Amino acid sequence: MKKGNKYGTHRVIEPKGALPQPALKISNDIEIFDNEILINVDYLNIDSASFTQLKEEAEGDIGKVKAKIMEIVNERGKMQNPVTGSGGMLIGNVEKIGDSIKEKVKIKEGDKIATLVSLSLTPLRIDEIIDIKPDIDRVEIKGKAILFESGIYAKLPDDMKSTLALAALDVAGAPAQVKQLVKSGNTVLILGATGKSGLMCSYVAKKLVGKKGKVIGQARNDARAEFLRNTEFCDEIIIADVLYPVEVLEKTLDANNGQEVDLTINCLSIPNTEMSSILPVRDGGTVYFFSMATSFTKAALGAEGVGKDVTMIIGNGYTKNHDKIALDVLRESKVLRKIFEEKYTGN
Amino acid sequence: MKKGNKYGTHRVIEPKGALPQPALKISNDIEIFDNEILINVDYLNIDSASFTQLKEEAEGDIGKVKAKIMEIVNERGKMQNPVTGSGGMLIGNVEKIGDSIKEKVKIKEGDKIATLVSLSLTPLRIDEIIDIKPDIDRVEIKGKAILFESGIYAKLPDDMKSTLALAALDVAGAPAQVKQLVKSGNTVLILGATGKSGLMCSYVAKKLVGKKGKVIGQARNDARAEFLRNTEFCDEIIIADVLYPVEVLEKTLDANNGQEVDLTINCLSIPNTEMSSILPVRDGGTVYFFSMATSFTKAALGAEGVGKDVTMIIGNGYTKNHDKIALDVLRESKVLRKIFEEKYTGN
Repeated sequence: MKKGNKYGTHRVIEPKGALPQPALKISNDIEIFDNEILINVDYLNIDSASFTQLKEEAEGDIGKVKAKIMEIVNERGKMQNPVTGSGGMLIGNVEKIGDSIKEKVKIKEGDKIATLVSLSLTPLRIDEIIDIKPDIDRVEIKGKAILFESGIYAKLPDDMKSTLALAALDVAGAPAQVKQLVKSGNTVLILGATGKSGLMCSYVAKKLVGKKGKVIGQARNDARAEFLRNTEFCDEIIIADVLYPVEVLEKTLDANNGQEVDLTINCLSIPNTEMSSILPVRDGGTVYFFSMATSFTKAALGAEGVGKDVTMIIGNGYTKNHDKIALDVLRESKVLRKIFEEKYTGN
Repeated sequence: MKKGNKYGTHRVIEPKGALPQPALKISNDIEIFDNEILINVDYLNIDSASFTQLKEEAEGDIGKVKAKIMEIVNERGKMQNPVTGSGGMLIGNVEKIGDSIKEKVKIKEGDKIATLVSLSLTPLRIDEIIDIKPDIDRVEIKGKAILFESGIYAKLPDDMKSTLALAALDVAGAPAQVKQLVKSGNTVLILGATGKSGLMCSYVAKKLVGKKGKVIGQARNDARAEFLRNTEFCDEIIIADVLYPVEVLEKTLDANNGQEVDLTINCLSIPNTEMSSILPVRDGGTVYFFSMATSFTKAALGAEGVGKDVTMIIGNGYTKNHDKIALDVLRESKVLRKIFEEKYTGN
């Protein structure tokens, strides 16, 4: 077997010397290098921002979404949406492990795993798209993928279905970072609280803020607000259009005795919500952007433009033990597990 | 006078209900609202990422850059680069102050000020472009601009030329945030250490890390490295191409006894340098992106892709007292002041 680079640079075709994620094209040749893992893929879980974009471009036509996915993967050697830059993750069985890492890894051939690195840097070959479930951003395929030595993954647990575990692992970075950021007594605004990562963040934040703190969840209409209310994950719920920052600010102030919040967590997957995240935060507070639709310049210049001295954090998909944290949240909360089973597993 | 919104939403033409920064088009009518300030503009200082893009698009032809600036301002009512999304700042004299804020503000008509909010949200009318100094990203114009109530600005100091103060204020967010981030004993890598914000950050970081810490400055070639060495702002200097993350990593490790650093500060103004910032940082460390050319998704997915548990911060152009901090740095360091006078004031 040929010797590979830890970060997978040996697969980059264009531009030379780049890492696989920013690269325009990588090799999806299924002959593995000595430090790679070959995966027989069952499903792709397309990143929410990417899938939304694909659906919009195809005007809801799933046949066109299918064709576009094939086109992207054939062109780039990976499922990286050229508009959003984002990917997603996948689930499959370990088919082969490179010689130089065989003794080091905690998995063996035949194990079912989920890759926790983005599809935006994962070599992928699709032989056939079997089915697309647009409501849960899932694409069932026949194909192979490659995991680099630096790539992270989780062996799927025995106490839940793989589709359920995947749904949780897909947003695992969010609850893990909420655990690091939220302190007892904090007031936390969660934008997109009714979505997959939003629900998880709300649940974790509520536990951490305690009785003296407050979690305010944003929903986009009455029905979503009612659904969120029933979870009891939030202390207060506001109904607001996130594209109107001044509206979000005013409703947040109403829900928080006229005070700005300590922290906003943006779990939305739509663009132009930077200011709705920044405006409600007090000077010295924090904005955590988990949304892949976030624009760096809009956030940086937006905060400056309104003279807000806030710390803005780019949501990192990886935090130590994030897989365990996310799966434990589902084990802990029956309400959350039920929602995840009903809404995000396609059963 | 008509009553205006604190954040300037009354000037947004398209899309309705947006804030001025993300808006596609705002009104640059010079009749002011009751909470606005009218400025008679002398210079624009175009954001470095924006100016680089404009020059590249114009293939170095300054006449074309001029035409493009006029086109952007006529179309959008503000100098916001449509590709980078960024703006810059301006200098001028206070021509008129709205009735409702006259008593509150600390400036009076006739004062010379620099606006510290981005041009990307500042209503601007250009009557004529008098001169462009491409080496210092400065555009001399005849024109007017409007400052909103939430807008921040600095009255220009008496102990230095306005061009010098402007050069410092333009990057004032960076040293102020370095002051908050860097602790005694830290190892800090500064990418783009030979540039305007990089030099300031290096100087401030060196003071803060103390004798047990280390500041490693990156330069792109021998000449720049020699220049940086002469400033004595860095403990170690590496020459590396920032588009090659693995090269940056290896040279940083060489300069730091094989150890990863606690913090990277990205002061570059070129795209695709996210991984060069992330790779050299230890798990649990911090990456501070001051570069407006940063891509949110490349940073978020990049860190995940290599399994790095790092905190990534979006450089906020505003931090409390950032104007004073930046000007004080120039007052304190004769070396830095001399460099700024020679390189960034166009004299």
